[in-house]
Amino acid sequence: MPHWTQIVAEKQQRQLKSIPQEWLVSPPPDSTLDVTGFPETCGLLSAREIEITNTSTDVLLEKLASGEWTSVDVTTAFYKRAIIAHQLVNCLTEIFVDRALVRAAELDDHLKKTGKVVGPLHGLPISLKDQLCIKGLETTVGYVSWIGQYAEKNAVLVDILIECGAVPFVRTNVPQTIMWGETYNYIFGRTTNPYNRSLTTSGSSGGEAALIALKGSPLGVGSDLGGSIRRPSAFCGLYGLRPSYGRVPYCGAVNSLEGQDSSPSVFGPMTSSIGGLKTFMKAVVNAKPWLKDPLVVRKQWDEDEYNLVDHGSGKNLCFGIMWDDGVVVPHPPIKRALEMTKAALEKAGHKVIDWKPIKHKLLGDVTRDVFNAGTVEDLMMVTSGTGEPIISTMELDGSEPLLRTGGITAYQLWQLQKLRRDTRKEYLDHWEVTASETGTGRPVDAIICPAAPYVAHPHGKSWYRHYTMVWNALDYPASIFPVTTVDPTLDARIPSHEFYDDFDKKVYDMYDDPETFKNAPVCLQLVGRTLEEEAVIKMTEIVDAALLA
Amino acid sequence: MPHWTQIVAEKQQRQLKSIPQEWLVSPPPDSTLDVTGFPETCGLLSAREIEITNTSTDVLLEKLASGEWTSVDVTTAFYKRAIIAHQLVNCLTEIFVDRALVRAAELDDHLKKTGKVVGPLHGLPISLKDQLCIKGLETTVGYVSWIGQYAEKNAVLVDILIECGAVPFVRTNVPQTIMWGETYNYIFGRTTNPYNRSLTTSGSSGGEAALIALKGSPLGVGSDLGGSIRRPSAFCGLYGLRPSYGRVPYCGAVNSLEGQDSSPSVFGPMTSSIGGLKTFMKAVVNAKPWLKDPLVVRKQWDEDEYNLVDHGSGKNLCFGIMWDDGVVVPHPPIKRALEMTKAALEKAGHKVIDWKPIKHKLLGDVTRDVFNAGTVEDLMMVTSGTGEPIISTMELDGSEPLLRTGGITAYQLWQLQKLRRDTRKEYLDHWEVTASETGTGRPVDAIICPAAPYVAHPHGKSWYRHYTMVWNALDYPASIFPVTTVDPTLDARIPSHEFYDDFDKKVYDMYDDPETFKNAPVCLQLVGRTLEEEAVIKMTEIVDAALLA
Repeated sequence: MPHWTQIVAEKQQRQLKSIPQEWLVSPPPDSTLDVTGFPETCGLLSAREIEITNTSTDVLLEKLASGEWTSVDVTTAFYKRAIIAHQLVNCLTEIFVDRALVRAAELDDHLKKTGKVVGPLHGLPISLKDQLCIKGLETTVGYVSWIGQYAEKNAVLVDILIECGAVPFVRTNVPQTIMWGETYNYIFGRTTNPYNRSLTTSGSSGGEAALIALKGSPLGVGSDLGGSIRRPSAFCGLYGLRPSYGRVPYCGAVNSLEGQDSSPSVFGPMTSSIGGLKTFMKAVVNAKPWLKDPLVVRKQWDEDEYNLVDHGSGKNLCFGIMWDDGVVVPHPPIKRALEMTKAALEKAGHKVIDWKPIKHKLLGDVTRDVFNAGTVEDLMMVTSGTGEPIISTMELDGSEPLLRTGGITAYQLWQLQKLRRDTRKEYLDHWEVTASETGTGRPVDAIICPAAPYVAHPHGKSWYRHYTMVWNALDYPASIFPVTTVDPTLDARIPSHEFYDDFDKKVYDMYDDPETFKNAPVCLQLVGRTLEEEAVIKMTEIVDAALLA
Repeated sequence: MPHWTQIVAEKQQRQLKSIPQEWLVSPPPDSTLDVTGFPETCGLLSAREIEITNTSTDVLLEKLASGEWTSVDVTTAFYKRAIIAHQLVNCLTEIFVDRALVRAAELDDHLKKTGKVVGPLHGLPISLKDQLCIKGLETTVGYVSWIGQYAEKNAVLVDILIECGAVPFVRTNVPQTIMWGETYNYIFGRTTNPYNRSLTTSGSSGGEAALIALKGSPLGVGSDLGGSIRRPSAFCGLYGLRPSYGRVPYCGAVNSLEGQDSSPSVFGPMTSSIGGLKTFMKAVVNAKPWLKDPLVVRKQWDEDEYNLVDHGSGKNLCFGIMWDDGVVVPHPPIKRALEMTKAALEKAGHKVIDWKPIKHKLLGDVTRDVFNAGTVEDLMMVTSGTGEPIISTMELDGSEPLLRTGGITAYQLWQLQKLRRDTRKEYLDHWEVTASETGTGRPVDAIICPAAPYVAHPHGKSWYRHYTMVWNALDYPASIFPVTTVDPTLDARIPSHEFYDDFDKKVYDMYDDPETFKNAPVCLQLVGRTLEEEAVIKMTEIVDAALLA
């Protein structure tokens, strides 16, 4: 067997060859940090292609369904912009232009012949995280050892998206193992943040987030084990949704820690237009995925739940705002975004009360420990295929390596899972008793909180994931919505003060110079009840409208 | 601390004292095997009490709601019959007559004052397996080490049943650890089968089954990890339902192997009248148990699914009959019951085709191995409280002890869980492709199969559980319905033949004398799709009606 570095070199050559030569551009030098304007000024895209790629998902679907725009034209436009994005922030893994365009042409043909769309996503190009197997393509998840493994069939979600009329057109970068909050691996390298390339996109769905932020894709699929849809969406200014376990099919995708059944990873949408959340979820759930994936919950898309029948039909909602989680205090831009959101909601006639977090440290820690129960064995088994090293840091200079702890017994794992289960019950009761404080007769309708204590930060500093991971632990669906961008004048460093502990101070110290984070998107998280995706989407739309009003 | 045998003796004394002296009877000698007639002839029950206890659940609820019968009268009648049953087959653990009658009187009072029922189970006495904690009572699960632990609150399901108007009135016997297919422990001893006390009731919900078979309870709650609702129901001639994971709340109940999240135990109804299945499930699901138990699926009771909208509205159904599982061939009474059911369904206008089992041995074995991953440590931790021995056999003479295997690592457990997950996908696809064979355009609507390769058998021979456990592994809801009883003339031993293997022959040899099993109930199992409880209940009603036609 060749040395792993040689396997990488060959794969990189194949990737390079998959890019049409005529779509190569001259990207700005690395010192140009904000590259969000580049795709529209580089000269590769026509005015019409710029118009198409700036169009929201819902309008795209209307124009595709009416035949005003063909899928070939739409797919070509997004593909070109995706390839530009890749040259700026290194966001793609698998590139398969011909295949996608053949599929798009088939859909155009079908519409022309029958006058009917294939399904609710007819003609729409959709990008996929590098876990969603497509027949005939490799899916490496950043592992050198998985290079050369060509899928014999599509993941179930890919089949369903195709049934719905979508055009899967690129796959996007992840960290080796997926078990990181940033995006770097030996094969495809590091994905950077389009708003500031010295900052991270977060991870593990970091390629997806960077691509969509540059409008190289209207809608993408990420996965979320501890925040991997939400933090990248938040760091790149997108909308994203982490559904509950078993609402979106995972079957046939590849992953780390397979067989870890207790707190599973889930797939969900990431998009630059809010309509994409409902469009994706409704299409996938209406396709009855439980007939293809045994772990999917048999639960129809519920338009009543979307219309908030359990939440006073959406009038006079009561939101709980969590200013901090009692462990790490968020940086000034996050605090400002929470204040803006509170003011906007109150102006729109809704009530906002404080949310008191309980046991967030315990919930995050115990869930991390469940993941770690067999992680080392899992990573060693996979990497033993080629002997590639296991990446131990996301820092540019390799400092602060992560020491992964060894495995535990099944019985010990059960004790962790029992503790998590019991804490879920405490949190459920904690939520229910808020009915006495809201004045609506209902418990708090949704929680609004940070997605992280910071915005996009320099590489290697993804220290704290509990702001997202607690909701995985509790299996609460959670969305991301954009609020503002960092403004060093408005978001000055606050004076040093008392801290929860040294770790809280370490995170505080990261925000030593607001200029470092200038123009970084600031997004927040909206959290609902288990399997209440419909209501979470609608309430996100309500918050978004209030912020834009 | 006193010796464990002394702790047992004291608990036994307390149990004895909880029985009203005036309800003690002179039970027939042990040599009287069939005791099903005894309750009505022993003289303790009045004619009205006999009428009440012979009434179906649905009619009881009507008479209770109309005030024709009071809850005090109904509860008293069932309590007396339950105490008689206990003296015959040793089926009860906790007995709390005063408390139940106070509750019944409150309900009667409420109805008299308001003219309204408290809920859909108003006034109905319900028996509970010895896992469902009731505030102020012990829940030992057959462990000496748990004697003296008085619950500080009700299990969630108990709270919900009370909200629905039910009267929890007794708790019922289980094997030590619950991890047995029979019912015996050091505290309460052995529960025997009312149809033949030399035979087992099966387990672990064996006390519940024996009680209901003697009409000492109209409706009870059992639990099912690998068949513990279904085999006892089948061995005692009852209706029973094993729902999917997370349809009925488990929170706040005690159990073995807590934290084992992959293939959890579930609660479900056991009853002597078929209407009890729907009545229980609809009442519990409509109470929105997901607001009290974080593991319950947010899924309303679906009357459309009950009306079989996904199954051609119940006309011209197509059932798959599984004659054997490819591992162990069932005894002659089971085969006759399958033939009777097939004939009845065809006569009623439905189609019946053969169901081809795939990978049943693998599915059962891997699920057993998941349970065993930490069982030894779990049992040792619990029993270390008093030093009580761990029971290693259900045989009367202690032969054939079970050797439990030691624990494995979390990573090894994940590999088992991954194998089970992948096999679930294979089975799902296997079911879906039957659409090409049914002639209905749909896949097979339900599977009909044995609940075990045998009927109720002599103690200690519960060798094979895969006929139920595969459906736990696949998380398919499954019901039990009665078909006939063993008739040694009709159910003669079949001549020796070729066997799948030695184990198949060992099970064949158990049926050496049909007289051993004379008059034992013969029930079958109906299996549907995950989270399709409503349809499984309706199809069970259809099969039951066809058999009675």
